[in-house]
Amino acid sequence: MASIRDLRKRLALYLVTDDKSSPEQLLTTVRSALEGGVTTVQLRRKHDDGRRLVELGHGIRELTKSFGALYIVNDRVDIALLTQADGVHVGQSDISCRDARRLLGDKLIGVSTCTLEEAKTAERDGADYLGVGAVFPTRSKSDADMCGIDGLAAITQYVSSPVVGIGGIALNNVKSVLEAGADGVAVVSAILHAEDPRRASVELKQFLT
Amino acid sequence: MASIRDLRKRLALYLVTDDKSSPEQLLTTVRSALEGGVTTVQLRRKHDDGRRLVELGHGIRELTKSFGALYIVNDRVDIALLTQADGVHVGQSDISCRDARRLLGDKLIGVSTCTLEEAKTAERDGADYLGVGAVFPTRSKSDADMCGIDGLAAITQYVSSPVVGIGGIALNNVKSVLEAGADGVAVVSAILHAEDPRRASVELKQFLT
Ligand code: NI
Repeated sequence: MASIRDLRKRLALYLVTDDKSSPEQLLTTVRSALEGGVTTVQLRRKHDDGRRLVELGHGIRELTKSFGALYIVNDRVDIALLTQADGVHVGQSDISCRDARRLLGDKLIGVSTCTLEEAKTAERDGADYLGVGAVFPTRSKSDADMCGIDGLAAITQYVSSPVVGIGGIALNNVKSVLEAGADGVAVVSAILHAEDPRRASVELKQFLT
Repeated sequence: MASIRDLRKRLALYLVTDDKSSPEQLLTTVRSALEGGVTTVQLRRKHDDGRRLVELGHGIRELTKSFGALYIVNDRVDIALLTQADGVHVGQSDISCRDARRLLGDKLIGVSTCTLEEAKTAERDGADYLGVGAVFPTRSKSDADMCGIDGLAAITQYVSSPVVGIGGIALNNVKSVLEAGADGVAVVSAILHAEDPRRASVELKQFLT
């Protein structure tokens, strides 16, 4: 990674995958999203076994490389190492940032945080960037995991690490996430489940450059 | 590992964990099992997140070390590396044996196999031992995953790697598994869900020395 300023830019439009589509469909959608301007792709599949994750990871690595985008793996440090990922993203119940660092050397480590306390801890533990959310309600997160725009702003004002907002972010609210100080926005549905993932990415990207 | 003969002995009574008990309960049961003569413990928890697996792994590493037993991690090579495991065990849909070898160097790699074809492939790919089953019906395996005593015997006659039989093995059938050429038996319920896990281990162990 050239610089923290470069990293902030590369985290601008951050796509997180889900379990809803087949591996083939997912790779097709990821390609469209990259064509539309996605800058980072995080492989996150909670129901896939290791072998399939490795296959998918190789596919996403190839695609992101050809578009100059970052490729990050959720939680599974082993899959990240085997598929030449740029790094991992860990939640509060995943492998810890410090443990991940032992296996990953100077690769990127992102940490999901919801409170200022968690954000401070993640910075102290050497996180390269923070994923902060849920900024808005989503179907997959309970109220307890919501930080809201105010919680996001409290974190971006305090930390010096790059911050990516996540949770319920779409065209109609992306501006408020950036105004709260986020360097980038992470989305799942807004791109993956859009009728036209390429176009959805282009539209989101307009706010981010 | 001193020798393949030593490895065969150390795989004799092989306990695989499950998701049914709390981490604290599980560690208590594992200790009892080790007191009763279990020679290998495999950490296999399909519903635990990475952080909890690391905690459990450290606990099992400590216990197995003090009893001179092997500690193996199912599928998660990252957890194995972080908790100083003796190796990993991978199924046909987990990280492949070859990929696991890239990350693990000369640590142990066990591979689940059900057919002679799978067993040959695992040996060719450098597996250190084979887990063969299901030998008997179990609640968690469909008929398709059954190899039976005959399937087990066909594999042990062909391969030179140590073989551990798995699936529905208990006091009343352990003898037939050894007669089919297995070096050891892997059990879940027969120890974990026994009224007295230590005693259950002692009783099984009598067949294995
Ligand atoms: Ni899982």
